[in-house]
Amino acid sequence: MSRTRLTPDHHKERIERLQTKLSKDDIDTFLVFNSKNIFYLTGLSIIPTERPIILIIHKGQVNFFVPSLEIDHVHHQVPFVSEIFSYFEYPDTIHPMKHLANVLMNELKISPLRVASEASAASGYWGYKGPSLMDVTGLNFKLLPEIIMDMRVIKEPEEIELMRESSKWADRVHRYLQEYTKIGANEIDVSIRASTQGSHDMITELGEHYYPTGFSMFPASAGYRGQIGPNSFFPHALSRGLEFKEGDTLVTGASSEVYGVRSELERTMFMGSPSKRQRELFSIMLAAQDAAFETAGPNVACSDVDKVVRKVFKEAGVIDLVRHHTGHGLGMEGHERPFIDRGSDVVMKPGMIFSCEPGIYERGLGGFRHSDTFVVNQDGIEVLTKYPRDIDSLIL
Amino acid sequence: MSRTRLTPDHHKERIERLQTKLSKDDIDTFLVFNSKNIFYLTGLSIIPTERPIILIIHKGQVNFFVPSLEIDHVHHQVPFVSEIFSYFEYPDTIHPMKHLANVLMNELKISPLRVASEASAASGYWGYKGPSLMDVTGLNFKLLPEIIMDMRVIKEPEEIELMRESSKWADRVHRYLQEYTKIGANEIDVSIRASTQGSHDMITELGEHYYPTGFSMFPASAGYRGQIGPNSFFPHALSRGLEFKEGDTLVTGASSEVYGVRSELERTMFMGSPSKRQRELFSIMLAAQDAAFETAGPNVACSDVDKVVRKVFKEAGVIDLVRHHTGHGLGMEGHERPFIDRGSDVVMKPGMIFSCEPGIYERGLGGFRHSDTFVVNQDGIEVLTKYPRDIDSLIL
Repeated sequence: MSRTRLTPDHHKERIERLQTKLSKDDIDTFLVFNSKNIFYLTGLSIIPTERPIILIIHKGQVNFFVPSLEIDHVHHQVPFVSEIFSYFEYPDTIHPMKHLANVLMNELKISPLRVASEASAASGYWGYKGPSLMDVTGLNFKLLPEIIMDMRVIKEPEEIELMRESSKWADRVHRYLQEYTKIGANEIDVSIRASTQGSHDMITELGEHYYPTGFSMFPASAGYRGQIGPNSFFPHALSRGLEFKEGDTLVTGASSEVYGVRSELERTMFMGSPSKRQRELFSIMLAAQDAAFETAGPNVACSDVDKVVRKVFKEAGVIDLVRHHTGHGLGMEGHERPFIDRGSDVVMKPGMIFSCEPGIYERGLGGFRHSDTFVVNQDGIEVLTKYPRDIDSLIL
Repeated sequence: MSRTRLTPDHHKERIERLQTKLSKDDIDTFLVFNSKNIFYLTGLSIIPTERPIILIIHKGQVNFFVPSLEIDHVHHQVPFVSEIFSYFEYPDTIHPMKHLANVLMNELKISPLRVASEASAASGYWGYKGPSLMDVTGLNFKLLPEIIMDMRVIKEPEEIELMRESSKWADRVHRYLQEYTKIGANEIDVSIRASTQGSHDMITELGEHYYPTGFSMFPASAGYRGQIGPNSFFPHALSRGLEFKEGDTLVTGASSEVYGVRSELERTMFMGSPSKRQRELFSIMLAAQDAAFETAGPNVACSDVDKVVRKVFKEAGVIDLVRHHTGHGLGMEGHERPFIDRGSDVVMKPGMIFSCEPGIYERGLGGFRHSDTFVVNQDGIEVLTKYPRDIDSLIL
């Protein structure tokens, strides 16, 4: 059975790594606000709302500061939690940040010179307003907004296994998307139907090994979001309820979520036999993606991979049809650092996971972009999404 | 035909109202970063990524600053756009914020003393990092983070019509959720099936009047997200792929998106005949919601509505089972200001839309919460979600 979740031991190991980094900065209290970072470190999945939810790493202990509606949820999900501090509600008669100041100063008795935080204040999400940490404590929190994201850039072997599993289900749900796409069908119906079947397969085949984290309604999903015919000219088109027509260039998207980790799979397909121009742009795009795969690997600069892709496009005379770089980091967000971009100063390292998705866009005709998920290993790269990339497999 | 979209005239009217407010502060250049606020003012729907997308209201003109992959998308969606400034990509060799500084200082030639912004910098979303507006321009932008949200609190008549339409489809999709829920079924399958059917109804019955904005895959959706049996004790439970069992207390959620506007409908239901305790907690919850509806109205303090609810719970001896306030504003986000909360200093005004959802939670048994969407009008309130609230209608 492949891996479909992480265990509290993984989370504790991540927290220890974070603490080692904090100790080097002489920090013994660290506040985490970002809900994905909290999930990364503790496995706690919650619905982010206007109510601040803060992970407080303090002298090796894992504490939480949460609204009353999440107290039991934390107990239920985080077996190694030390203390849960809480406030009733936001806004309530006393602002949550004042309760937090009391917890920090009087309960945890934090050392004023050894405190750090991801953010200077809770974010103004869903109507939240509030004072900064400085305002309520009078202390100068050292800001370390990137420390956890820097950890997340290099995936552990277990996380790579989650991405491998996610890629497998992206392939599966994409198969349904291709199968259900017919002339005259509405893109919304087709996308939902494919996602329904792919999700059903995933939860039934994984059975008790399916461990949802609640981040998405569909465990596996695939769709077009409007990238149909001339509308696929917009790289970030949005669903318009379009119907498929003979001659359309299509750009798909598929993914699945395995314990918060999400792969990316996209394909360019055609409704009926492609025209000469459609074939030409498809083959240039494919050559660019091939060139990226051949170039990428450990100790290769991200910028070099993007430059190789641009060279293919330039030599084919289509550089003016380019609207974006070659790819981005993948993990728990739709996009993550680092970027495969000519301006990147990052060198690829084993454990980094990227999308590879060079694209070209011709007005009136559409977009030409495959996207695959690959991981950098010691020797080169491994492409985790396995869906066919050749044109004959993608003509409907 | 009921209203399913706003037109460019609505958006222009909103921008004019914003400009009137800005003029009072002697501001003639204003930068908007929040994608929902940009949609509210212009009708532009985009996928937010790490690439900054900024609406620049400048001397009565509507300008955008966007990455190259969104240039044509803006032209396509915003007929009254004046100028579109762009950068190729993020991170690229020159940071987008440096391009922005050039646009502001050299192209638009902004007045240093008359500039304001929603935020001091683009947000660190999906791996973005960047300097502040001050860093790249040397100018002190006045920060007006709340000016658009303050406008959004009072809904125009057209927006209330969108919410009415959204409520209608929430009712419809909830009907399917109730119909498909059976002992032994998996919550994920049932939620997806109901959302599929409700969405299909919505797009086929509205036909050309269905105008998706691309914010959600399902035009109409309903589900449980884990609020099944003892797990419904967690007010913000997350989907766990649970199966329905005899005796379960269920808490549902349903909504639909109509041109970015989202209603909220939730019901407490029972698998089979409820026990004495289930009936008792249900009827207390219903009495609390009735009391809130009777109290709410124009010129009533939000805090008074919450206090009336708390009084019902206290007199019934269940105040310790309360985990949250009575409700929150509704519009384009899941929650919005103002809150129906004992600590709120807001007075209800015609055009405000709220959820009304007093809840109680008993460990081992589950959660008891209905949520309905209501609008405050000149004479009182109107409840827009019409789904049956009585226990006999909610026993499966």
